[in-house]
Amino acid sequence: MRKKRILRILFACGLVAMPPLAAIASAQAQSADDNNAAVERVLRTQQEAWNRHDLDGFMEGYWKSAELTFFSGGKVTSGWQAALDRYRAKYSGPGNEMGKLEFSDLRIETLGPDAAFVRGAFHLTMSDGKTPHGIFTLVFRKFPDGWKIVHDHTSVE
Amino acid sequence: MRKKRILRILFACGLVAMPPLAAIASAQAQSADDNNAAVERVLRTQQEAWNRHDLDGFMEGYWKSAELTFFSGGKVTSGWQAALDRYRAKYSGPGNEMGKLEFSDLRIETLGPDAAFVRGAFHLTMSDGKTPHGIFTLVFRKFPDGWKIVHDHTSVE
Repeated sequence: MRKKRILRILFACGLVAMPPLAAIASAQAQSADDNNAAVERVLRTQQEAWNRHDLDGFMEGYWKSAELTFFSGGKVTSGWQAALDRYRAKYSGPGNEMGKLEFSDLRIETLGPDAAFVRGAFHLTMSDGKTPHGIFTLVFRKFPDGWKIVHDHTSVE
Repeated sequence: MRKKRILRILFACGLVAMPPLAAIASAQAQSADDNNAAVERVLRTQQEAWNRHDLDGFMEGYWKSAELTFFSGGKVTSGWQAALDRYRAKYSGPGNEMGKLEFSDLRIETLGPDAAFVRGAFHLTMSDGKTPHGIFTLVFRKFPDGWKIVHDHTSVE
């Protein structure tokens, strides 16, 4: 009787410690779906901010840290502030404009419980008819205040 | 007496199910160190293969899959075979050479139990004195046969 009770308790412990594998797999798939949706929302929010010419809103998608890295056309920019300065000089300085931004070919892949990366393309339409475009790789991490880009690598033809 | 024994068993179960947080953190740090070392070994092996002009050996660092992606200078190459063809055309075709490859500024970051990404720079020295160079972002995943690059984004100035 005593043994039986102990066995029952051990069994209960085991159930708590080891949920069925199918349940784990299903929870992981659900969590990957949730993560991908959250990451895509960040990108959509960035696109909307850009298209109302709100560079500060656009920058909210980036990790506000000196450790943010931005690789573009062979050049390294380190830190959130430097990334903002680069965007300001390129798109909102005198004689420049932000144009209309579209992301396409987005492929979001979860890499862990708090990490994901995105492959995609961007396409700008300027008022003079020019269409600067290129491709990017983004690494996202999940922070207490949401998913943020910690590394951006962009290149153009 | 019976209660005491049951409590002892429950306590033992608890210890198995929930190791102290410090132990988890230490195990995670150890595992991240191991992963970073394994990823760095892949890159060192690639560099050595390149420098003995062994393109097949170099390509072993890449995931041998149609899903491998290679972004370079705004262009997308999809699949391991296409990536190899691209390297062949660029570096081992008639009139071309592989030169001497050096990786530098490697920054390896673990993103999950089976994922990591690498920021770095490459520098080639050719026999005519030219030094093509650029920067890259690599996403690695851990497979049963080791860590492999699943995505490469390279850009040059």
